[in-house]
Amino acid sequence: MTNGQRRERRLTTGSALLLAATFIGAPGRAAPQPAPQDARADPALIEELVAANRILGQQGIFDGFGHVSVRHGRDPNRFLLSRSLAPELVTADDIVEFDLESRALNAAGRTLYLERFIHGAIYRARPDVSAVVHSHSPALVPFSVSSVPLRPVSHTAGFIVDGVPVFDIRKASGITDMLVSDADRARRLAGTLGPQPAALMRGHGVVVVGASLPIAVGRSIYLEMNARHQSQAIALGGTITYLDPQEARRVMAAGENGGYQRAWELWKRNVAAK
Amino acid sequence: MTNGQRRERRLTTGSALLLAATFIGAPGRAAPQPAPQDARADPALIEELVAANRILGQQGIFDGFGHVSVRHGRDPNRFLLSRSLAPELVTADDIVEFDLESRALNAAGRTLYLERFIHGAIYRARPDVSAVVHSHSPALVPFSVSSVPLRPVSHTAGFIVDGVPVFDIRKASGITDMLVSDADRARRLAGTLGPQPAALMRGHGVVVVGASLPIAVGRSIYLEMNARHQSQAIALGGTITYLDPQEARRVMAAGENGGYQRAWELWKRNVAAK
Amino acid sequence: MTNGQRRERRLTTGSALLLAATFIGAPGRAAPQPAPQDARADPALIEELVAANRILGQQGIFDGFGHVSVRHGRDPNRFLLSRSLAPELVTADDIVEFDLESRALNAAGRTLYLERFIHGAIYRARPDVSAVVHSHSPALVPFSVSSVPLRPVSHTAGFIVDGVPVFDIRKASGITDMLVSDADRARRLAGTLGPQPAALMRGHGVVVVGASLPIAVGRSIYLEMNARHQSQAIALGGTITYLDPQEARRVMAAGENGGYQRAWELWKRNVAAK
Amino acid sequence: MTNGQRRERRLTTGSALLLAATFIGAPGRAAPQPAPQDARADPALIEELVAANRILGQQGIFDGFGHVSVRHGRDPNRFLLSRSLAPELVTADDIVEFDLESRALNAAGRTLYLERFIHGAIYRARPDVSAVVHSHSPALVPFSVSSVPLRPVSHTAGFIVDGVPVFDIRKASGITDMLVSDADRARRLAGTLGPQPAALMRGHGVVVVGASLPIAVGRSIYLEMNARHQSQAIALGGTITYLDPQEARRVMAAGENGGYQRAWELWKRNVAAK
Repeated sequence: MTNGQRRERRLTTGSALLLAATFIGAPGRAAPQPAPQDARADPALIEELVAANRILGQQGIFDGFGHVSVRHGRDPNRFLLSRSLAPELVTADDIVEFDLESRALNAAGRTLYLERFIHGAIYRARPDVSAVVHSHSPALVPFSVSSVPLRPVSHTAGFIVDGVPVFDIRKASGITDMLVSDADRARRLAGTLGPQPAALMRGHGVVVVGASLPIAVGRSIYLEMNARHQSQAIALGGTITYLDPQEARRVMAAGENGGYQRAWELWKRNVAAK
Repeated sequence: MTNGQRRERRLTTGSALLLAATFIGAPGRAAPQPAPQDARADPALIEELVAANRILGQQGIFDGFGHVSVRHGRDPNRFLLSRSLAPELVTADDIVEFDLESRALNAAGRTLYLERFIHGAIYRARPDVSAVVHSHSPALVPFSVSSVPLRPVSHTAGFIVDGVPVFDIRKASGITDMLVSDADRARRLAGTLGPQPAALMRGHGVVVVGASLPIAVGRSIYLEMNARHQSQAIALGGTITYLDPQEARRVMAAGENGGYQRAWELWKRNVAAK
Repeated sequence: MTNGQRRERRLTTGSALLLAATFIGAPGRAAPQPAPQDARADPALIEELVAANRILGQQGIFDGFGHVSVRHGRDPNRFLLSRSLAPELVTADDIVEFDLESRALNAAGRTLYLERFIHGAIYRARPDVSAVVHSHSPALVPFSVSSVPLRPVSHTAGFIVDGVPVFDIRKASGITDMLVSDADRARRLAGTLGPQPAALMRGHGVVVVGASLPIAVGRSIYLEMNARHQSQAIALGGTITYLDPQEARRVMAAGENGGYQRAWELWKRNVAAK
Repeated sequence: MTNGQRRERRLTTGSALLLAATFIGAPGRAAPQPAPQDARADPALIEELVAANRILGQQGIFDGFGHVSVRHGRDPNRFLLSRSLAPELVTADDIVEFDLESRALNAAGRTLYLERFIHGAIYRARPDVSAVVHSHSPALVPFSVSSVPLRPVSHTAGFIVDGVPVFDIRKASGITDMLVSDADRARRLAGTLGPQPAALMRGHGVVVVGASLPIAVGRSIYLEMNARHQSQAIALGGTITYLDPQEARRVMAAGENGGYQRAWELWKRNVAAK
């Protein structure tokens, strides 16, 4: 086990408090190491990634668009992501390896997601992150364009205790086609994300990260849920008691929804049964 | 049949008015009796509990989280609850027996729900209760954080005629991880619940109780429905005529939605067919 | 064919304008004739009624509660309604015949819906009506308690051109358990309904009628849809252009959504496939 | 390949910017050419049309009503549309050929949609259009009656950068039954549509067009999505940052959601699996 792998493993199991603590700073800081020649992705990890694709589809986080990646288990300088395909159709054979410049290593001519750069840029900037979700999560898009900030209503959204930054691509990169389709835009998005678990993308969607696939998937699902809760609470017209920051930190220290393991089992069963 | 069993049976069939009348007071008052050595849970009751888990999942009251318990049919000082598992995955083999201190009697090393204490505390405080549901019911969470109180819109929510108290764990127990994961927090929650059929848990969810599984499950489903009705009525912007308290008491005296038996048949069929 | 049957047939095929024109007045006016001894309900009509039960369940108009009836095809002084059962579970064997006093003619000990009186009272008061739906249609309950009246947004709701009266059982019958469970309450409800295609029931639901099962079922579905449309239009905060009454009358004269025949075929296929 | 076919093909692959540029003006301008005697519709195109019908049903854009057509691949003066049938029931055998006067060429006695004229009028006025959808898209109906205009929230709705005109049939044709059931009403609707990708129909629904079936279907789905996004953003009560027109033009120039090909594959798979 290399030092890099040891560090990765430690980070992978860290709580969100740990994530914040271990985040050191400037995007692009991490020096990618040469990929070992014999590193093959663990088939079990690929199966988890396929499940993550289907779960996010079935849960309504993904529609035809959206993608989820996982850091390569045996080489922290690589990540795994499907070829360009609607997530619910993804199988193990569609998974492609990328380096942290978001260059495909085994594409073999397959079409790639235009926004694959999101993933590489975040893995470079965030050694604590092992999974990245980009979606057009339907209840989050309204918050991405509203002056009303997304705030944690329930303990299941304790992970956004420090707020959800909003990436406005017009401020970062001027007039664009709104896609994070090159390394520069992706670096700026990673910069807006900073040490947080999620960033809204104005008029577009969201990027959600975590130390594992269940965490990034679970956060995607409960962030969408929190947006619905907050919208409905606002519509009631009274005053709202949001989660206390100290409570949220305790939630995170206590393991953030049990690492989503209980729900993950259910979600996997549901996509397997289908 | 012991005196305790006779009393239990009488309570189990009582209307909500009876529930209020028979509620005597301070949590922890009930003196647990030693469990008979030969009391085994009725397999039919376990099947009902398994169905309740799946019904609440299928109806969208439970997601990966949430749990439902039933008082042991042959020993009022015990209750049945699944091991830690997403409710839709629960089978008869996952059901564990607990005493009213929420100590597992036959866990055999299985992981338990952190919030199992909710169930024991309520069964101790409420001899009239034979089933307890804890959920993150999606339309109820907004009411748990809003200054706007949940009120009965339709006769199917007549059971909340005396209001739905809100348990704010910060006021009860200070800064916590929001989980009712010990006996003291659970006792305080049961105290907030008092003689009512339900209590909202601020930034968390709800606890709903009843004299039987169909009643606790039915109340969970119709309380969620009432929250949607009330939210939508508020959004219309006019004045709202809520259920008259006298009407609500008649609804309860008339048998509260027929004891939910007609719907219960349908719900069970739907989870059996799946 | 008796005169009564001829008249019934004519009414059954009339448009809503015709319905209004032929409505003569005071509930209870129609003099029931003795039922022919040999009148048996057409099995095809019973199959339509079974389909109507399942369609309204699948479309989310019914939950465990609600019921739909049809006037007996061979005797206008009888109607067909299921025994007390969740509508999605109804089969041909569950259908019971009733007279217009809502007395079961062949119950054979089976439990009956408490609110069966709704059906008899309406068939008595409305010779133009051949099908009656009572439901807790979820988007309609908020309108039943709001001072904001339900109004037609889209041409598919043209049938409510003359408004949807609201039956407040407290004003009609004082403090009750909210159920229309006797002949007197039902007569008052029919009086509020008057010549209209639907009446909201405050804090309860709705009753929808039509000259055939497809019409009563279709109106139930599109009235629910209209409530959602109107709620959402109100939430946008601008001014709203409702359907012009003259337009609505043209919609009705043109055959009211094609008698719902195109949708009826789809709905039946969907419940048959299940 | 005739000149007409070449021009059609070029238009079929154009971007929305191209669509606007090539739109020349007055409805009815295009001079229909006599249909070649040997032109038979490509079975693959018919299969795409059948899929489009089912996709729009499964995605909740169509209910029992609504229809989708495609321009005949081998004769730009014809189009293909189902006989009158709920869209989810449509099979290849139900597809009928029409000329641009919306006259059926091979109906063989089959009943036709009353509003088939919508399709012919648009194909005549818009040589750039190869597919037309008419629906009662549920989140769009409220915008059709509101003074609040539909505006693009997210890049997936970039195609409405120049606004969505509202066709008020009362202003165009006086008091009607609201149906676009003759050539004159259809010509007026096409006039309101002008060069745009969609027009709301007040109190009725929407017409959406595109250079291919995947584009018209995809726009139908994402226009509905945008309506939900905008409604929810308005309900939050803050200020909203809509898509910048320059951004929207870049989105269109970059290929408008990838021509919806990735989602189209998923949608087709989903209806095939059913």
